[in-house]
Amino acid sequence: MSERRFVILTEGHSNPTTAKTACCVIRYCPEQAVALLDAEQQGKRSGDLLGVGDVPVIGSLADAPDANALLIGIAPPGGKLPVPWRRLIHEAIDRGMDIVSGMHEFLNDDPEFAAAAKASSARLVDVRNNRITEIARGEGLREDCLRIHTVGHDCSVGKMVTAYEITSGLKQRGLDAKFAATGQTGIVVEGDGYPVDCMVADFVSGAAERLVMDNQHHDIVVVEGQGSLVHPSYSSVTLGLLHGCQPHGMIMCYEVGRSCPHGVDHLSLPPLGHIIKLYESMASIRRPCRVIGIAMNSRTLTSDQAEEERERARNEFGVPVCDIFRHGADELVEAVLQLKDTRCCGPVS
Amino acid sequence: MSERRFVILTEGHSNPTTAKTACCVIRYCPEQAVALLDAEQQGKRSGDLLGVGDVPVIGSLADAPDANALLIGIAPPGGKLPVPWRRLIHEAIDRGMDIVSGMHEFLNDDPEFAAAAKASSARLVDVRNNRITEIARGEGLREDCLRIHTVGHDCSVGKMVTAYEITSGLKQRGLDAKFAATGQTGIVVEGDGYPVDCMVADFVSGAAERLVMDNQHHDIVVVEGQGSLVHPSYSSVTLGLLHGCQPHGMIMCYEVGRSCPHGVDHLSLPPLGHIIKLYESMASIRRPCRVIGIAMNSRTLTSDQAEEERERARNEFGVPVCDIFRHGADELVEAVLQLKDTRCCGPVS
Repeated sequence: MSERRFVILTEGHSNPTTAKTACCVIRYCPEQAVALLDAEQQGKRSGDLLGVGDVPVIGSLADAPDANALLIGIAPPGGKLPVPWRRLIHEAIDRGMDIVSGMHEFLNDDPEFAAAAKASSARLVDVRNNRITEIARGEGLREDCLRIHTVGHDCSVGKMVTAYEITSGLKQRGLDAKFAATGQTGIVVEGDGYPVDCMVADFVSGAAERLVMDNQHHDIVVVEGQGSLVHPSYSSVTLGLLHGCQPHGMIMCYEVGRSCPHGVDHLSLPPLGHIIKLYESMASIRRPCRVIGIAMNSRTLTSDQAEEERERARNEFGVPVCDIFRHGADELVEAVLQLKDTRCCGPVS
Repeated sequence: MSERRFVILTEGHSNPTTAKTACCVIRYCPEQAVALLDAEQQGKRSGDLLGVGDVPVIGSLADAPDANALLIGIAPPGGKLPVPWRRLIHEAIDRGMDIVSGMHEFLNDDPEFAAAAKASSARLVDVRNNRITEIARGEGLREDCLRIHTVGHDCSVGKMVTAYEITSGLKQRGLDAKFAATGQTGIVVEGDGYPVDCMVADFVSGAAERLVMDNQHHDIVVVEGQGSLVHPSYSSVTLGLLHGCQPHGMIMCYEVGRSCPHGVDHLSLPPLGHIIKLYESMASIRRPCRVIGIAMNSRTLTSDQAEEERERARNEFGVPVCDIFRHGADELVEAVLQLKDTRCCGPVS
């Protein structure tokens, strides 16, 4: 994907929660991000709207003549394309731009898009499309490759960013680590991975197991988590991924002050300590697996409040706690290395 | 499906574990079961091979000239059709028989089958095919409809049969109860339901929620469970279903002496008490939900051994325990009625 120059479509949804695909591509692949497209916000910069980067916000495709691809920049619940975007997508197709989408509704299955793409030679890239039809076997995973898994108390709290930043931190220290992407955004950023939330349900764990097997020639694999065990819509994917990748240790990600599951305002989230217990019990069915560190998303707090919350969480849970964006991922990287050392020197489970 | 007269294809797989679709159709829809097709077992009766009914085993389709449909009678791990069966299916299609299949690989997606069916006007019925693309919302469930869910320590231990028999027992006592089918076999038997293991993963809970909403005009809905929270391949489906149908009470199904997860011989099953705790913790995230009874599958035991195990389990778990086939479902039906009474008279959660 190195030659892609994206216009990132976030029209009407240019906020950091809904537009998380846009945020991550701007953060981790800035050379590919030419502009954000959102007519209502024209003239602003990505930093103003999404809190990341300094990409211009344009009002029409014509404002980015050099772009050669359109990226669907949002990850909405259910993965459906906003209807008003169809016109914009057609415009991009007619210009011969590739369209990259992580929606559940595949561009290639849409007769109008498919016909238009055929006429203009545009490529329709459905990131979530896959042909995995193997169940997990629960075997074949190498014990000399350390498996770390980022999990969360909810959707959209930073599991992908945390996995990516821990992997980067490990690489910076000279380790052979791999970010194993499991969602549309991670796959666009990393260039490979499996979209586990789009498997036929029987094959979610199989896809996660395959993802680890594909990458266990590395010393450490950091598997991006999805959803949450306590989200009423998505817990199925979360558990399938957890059981398929069989982590040796987990990093718990949470957003301070989040009280309801993402998109489900009438329900509440259980206390973090209870959620950690649920993850540890479900991860430890056949081998012990603990939460070894906590990634705190404190974007809604002041700096003082964030430090106070960090201290509180450290005391309550007894593991390293940091906000990736405020403090970097060093403490979590250390926790991973410590687990690696313990496992190498101690008895193999 | 009332006019269907099935030849049930189990060729080379005529045992009660693999051929569970065959077993249940013979048990619950005997008027539709004309014959079993398994050339190696020709001349025997279904009771000899599957321990159920008295249907003849035939060696070729020609031996059942009155049959008008072929039912794929097995539910193998991964849901793939045995390759040698293709010839038999083609023979049935060419005779104009409907083909009813619960495989993940859809008959209608197979160009050869599709072309043959078009030529002969045979219908290809893929039970698992579905168009559900809605996530669960965690709302809209009526509290005056009691939701019971059969869960298991493993696959193929009797969750469907237990749900069906409890529903029948409730109906016999004059209650308005509904068996809510979630798998290929249950759907063939009941004539409706959703195949939750074949949803795109994000929509498993949505399908389970929809299944309850479709049926909550009944007083009691008994939702068939799938897989197991401790099965390395299928736990994703199990949790999605559990969270989608939000049971008020669970019936735990287990087979005495089962030591490994179905199809995964190198792993062991945790103790039943631990598994019950996992189910109760995952089912009780937002409302309390307990295991209110246990369906013991004691098919490998003598009668004396079964009584001993029943007593042991009653003492260990403190709830009613019975083997549906040895003792009937009465004690479990009583447990459901008791929960219903408690909820009607006590505080609504």
